[in-house]
Amino acid sequence: MPAAEPTSLRQAIPVDEIRYNEQGLVPAIVQDYLDGTVLMMAWMNRESLQKTLETAETWFWSRSRQQFWHKGETSGHIQKVRSLRYDCDSDALLITVEQVGDIACHTGERSCFHQVDGEKAPPPADTLSDLFAVICDRRDNPVEGSYTRQLFAGGDNKILKKIGEEAAEVVMACKDDEKDAIAGEVADLFYHSLVALAHHHVDVRAVYRKLQDRRR
Amino acid sequence: MPAAEPTSLRQAIPVDEIRYNEQGLVPAIVQDYLDGTVLMMAWMNRESLQKTLETAETWFWSRSRQQFWHKGETSGHIQKVRSLRYDCDSDALLITVEQVGDIACHTGERSCFHQVDGEKAPPPADTLSDLFAVICDRRDNPVEGSYTRQLFAGGDNKILKKIGEEAAEVVMACKDDEKDAIAGEVADLFYHSLVALAHHHVDVRAVYRKLQDRRR
Repeated sequence: MPAAEPTSLRQAIPVDEIRYNEQGLVPAIVQDYLDGTVLMMAWMNRESLQKTLETAETWFWSRSRQQFWHKGETSGHIQKVRSLRYDCDSDALLITVEQVGDIACHTGERSCFHQVDGEKAPPPADTLSDLFAVICDRRDNPVEGSYTRQLFAGGDNKILKKIGEEAAEVVMACKDDEKDAIAGEVADLFYHSLVALAHHHVDVRAVYRKLQDRRR
Repeated sequence: MPAAEPTSLRQAIPVDEIRYNEQGLVPAIVQDYLDGTVLMMAWMNRESLQKTLETAETWFWSRSRQQFWHKGETSGHIQKVRSLRYDCDSDALLITVEQVGDIACHTGERSCFHQVDGEKAPPPADTLSDLFAVICDRRDNPVEGSYTRQLFAGGDNKILKKIGEEAAEVVMACKDDEKDAIAGEVADLFYHSLVALAHHHVDVRAVYRKLQDRRR
């Protein structure tokens, strides 16, 4: 596996070159390091950014309470910082974190962005995580006639046979060097792998965590 | 494949219930719909949000020019809106888009968040996309002794043999119902699939696009 390329957090952001607004604040977008889900947006001032860099945990400035807010200090849901970036105008921050407890929102939801027209809807993440959520929903709420439903009904023997088949099709597409077919067959292999994970109640993020841990 | 669950953009956000700031603005985070990369953050007022909902393309309010800003109008790099969400305080928006031209930043970079201490660094996305970038870098800048380097050196026959092996190991781990082994073997299968994609110069996002297209 590729080796990690650690960057020192303390040097990631030149705190004096960030363009804070008239209240001395800069918006900070917080994103899950595994699947890219945006967990929340909050505000930092120069000092809370400095504390974040020093402690590798997120510190914000609470506009309503006019005080520092060490995220998770009371709830235990702290955010361990993995990376920090700033944008081309130096007036917004992007922070990837490992969210302890997998809950960032004060409502108990994983992400603060869980609303679509007042209805709860899972926050967007990458395509595989998104698809995995749909597959788990099909597992728990079977839809008659759905292909995913048929796979679950067939159990391991049906699902795993497909993984063997799709792996062989990836091999053939690569041997033919057919780029569109390669993308399609890897998509099939990924999809059936997600069904196998769902069937065994293994989260796709456990797979991501394995890949991230090996890169350290 | 699971069927699409389309949501009407017009109903996604109750424009009158959004909490705009003292300048009548709300921050909008723009995220790639395929891999979750945060592309930019900009500001919307009530009218630009309304235009965004009506046209399914992003419209912002330019604070420097004090006018509407139809993203991509001059560059052609428009953003086709896939979903809109708002946060628990109703004072921030999260928008997933299909970025035309794959360039969101005025500097020509894909994302505005491309800086770490003044150095260019690829913006964070999900684990697989992140790993794929590292694998492509190993392909283009071989590191002596790296496992990924050995795979590329062995070409299709070495890479594809591993895909067969790892698929068989996923099958065995599932048959044993060993959850930790399942996560580890699927991680191996995904990793070697990414190496095959990189070897054939097929982007992992082409795989994501296949999966998204099938859900429509």
